[in-house]
Amino acid sequence: MTKLAVVGLGPGGAHDMTVRAIDALEACDLIVGYTTYIELIADQFADKEMLSTPMRKEVDRCHLALQEAAKGRKVAMVCSGDPGIYGMAGLLFELVSEYPGVEIEVIPGVSASNGGAAVLGAPLMHDWCSISLSDLLTPWEKIEARLRAAAEADFSISIYNPSSRKRADYLKRACDILLETKDPETVCGYVRNIGRDGEEARVLTLVELRDTPVDMFTCVFIGNSQTVLIDGHMVTPRGYLQREDSE
Amino acid sequence: MTKLAVVGLGPGGAHDMTVRAIDALEACDLIVGYTTYIELIADQFADKEMLSTPMRKEVDRCHLALQEAAKGRKVAMVCSGDPGIYGMAGLLFELVSEYPGVEIEVIPGVSASNGGAAVLGAPLMHDWCSISLSDLLTPWEKIEARLRAAAEADFSISIYNPSSRKRADYLKRACDILLETKDPETVCGYVRNIGRDGEEARVLTLVELRDTPVDMFTCVFIGNSQTVLIDGHMVTPRGYLQREDSE
Repeated sequence: MTKLAVVGLGPGGAHDMTVRAIDALEACDLIVGYTTYIELIADQFADKEMLSTPMRKEVDRCHLALQEAAKGRKVAMVCSGDPGIYGMAGLLFELVSEYPGVEIEVIPGVSASNGGAAVLGAPLMHDWCSISLSDLLTPWEKIEARLRAAAEADFSISIYNPSSRKRADYLKRACDILLETKDPETVCGYVRNIGRDGEEARVLTLVELRDTPVDMFTCVFIGNSQTVLIDGHMVTPRGYLQREDSE
Repeated sequence: MTKLAVVGLGPGGAHDMTVRAIDALEACDLIVGYTTYIELIADQFADKEMLSTPMRKEVDRCHLALQEAAKGRKVAMVCSGDPGIYGMAGLLFELVSEYPGVEIEVIPGVSASNGGAAVLGAPLMHDWCSISLSDLLTPWEKIEARLRAAAEADFSISIYNPSSRKRADYLKRACDILLETKDPETVCGYVRNIGRDGEEARVLTLVELRDTPVDMFTCVFIGNSQTVLIDGHMVTPRGYLQREDSE
């Protein structure tokens, strides 16, 4: 069997990669990925052959990697964050049966939710949901139902793909759904370019977030009913101190 | 200002740590953590002073780390997985105001959800929730409401703390709630000791999971309505192939 490694680069630069991810990239013959991610690692792995493909060519990119692996080459496909969170791991498993002799190995990474949360403070310390606002692959009605369920059950929420050129008002629409049940003063935050040049973070209320434009390189965090602002940091208590008070 | 770094070790052994986590531990004077995690890194950082505290002493452990940082020492507190996911990051932010001159830096890690998902395949490729079944800090009614909301809105679910000695039947109770709305044949899985000696993984149906005992070192994964079993792997499609079919 030839292993095709699908490798999480973490949210930011080289220092957010795990030892296992670095080892996998050093051991491979060919690195395949979306152009932006290939550029991020080009210097660090300058001696490797690299193949990059543009956005929205996910199926082609996976076939390309699988074809090269089927020839017996050691291939690594790179994804930003974690390949199992809105990445390429699932699609590779869906396609690999067409390539006998190839096996997928998922090398997990620090996801944008974890990386962005660390920049803001600790917004995801209690139960939380991850929701993408992209309706390219998911009906908007399903996204709305998930936002509503997450708000009603008081989850903290990490929002991926909050906006794009064609969907400039999606975050506003999402906030309006959350505002049906959540306090307008709910503590929220966002991080743009997590761990990369030009990283920007801001903490604000849900009603302020509603009217704040963000771009597709931004991860948005919605607090639960307990989330507080502590010296500029967004923090969702787990309840340790609250337990002590009641004992 | 003295920085206290709260560092995610990732789910398993040393190879799941990020470069940034290793750098932080190498740069510090003192490493503080729960006994089990200190033991995991004792050999790798053998020249460091280490302080370990038992489980359920979270508040004491954080005060200890903050007190040492307030003396001007470079302290790193270690957590399994990601410190911002059911870890110590939030509690440190809640306590740090008592220690003027100390600042918290969160160094994210690969969480158990990401690490366990990678072992099983790609179960969290679409929108998903993280829910802990521990009712030490959270009323059981709130946990039930979150399970019900997650099932109704068709999230994949990662379940932490599925069991303990005092709560042997909690996973069964959780499955019963999920079975109110979910198909009994829903693809599920679990991973025990992710990335460590004795790692065990199994894929099974929701109705089988209901009657399967698991321990507190296990992370459980519940599929959404689209999750499938592909050659032994648990995979939740994002929808790339389904989009192509419809184009």
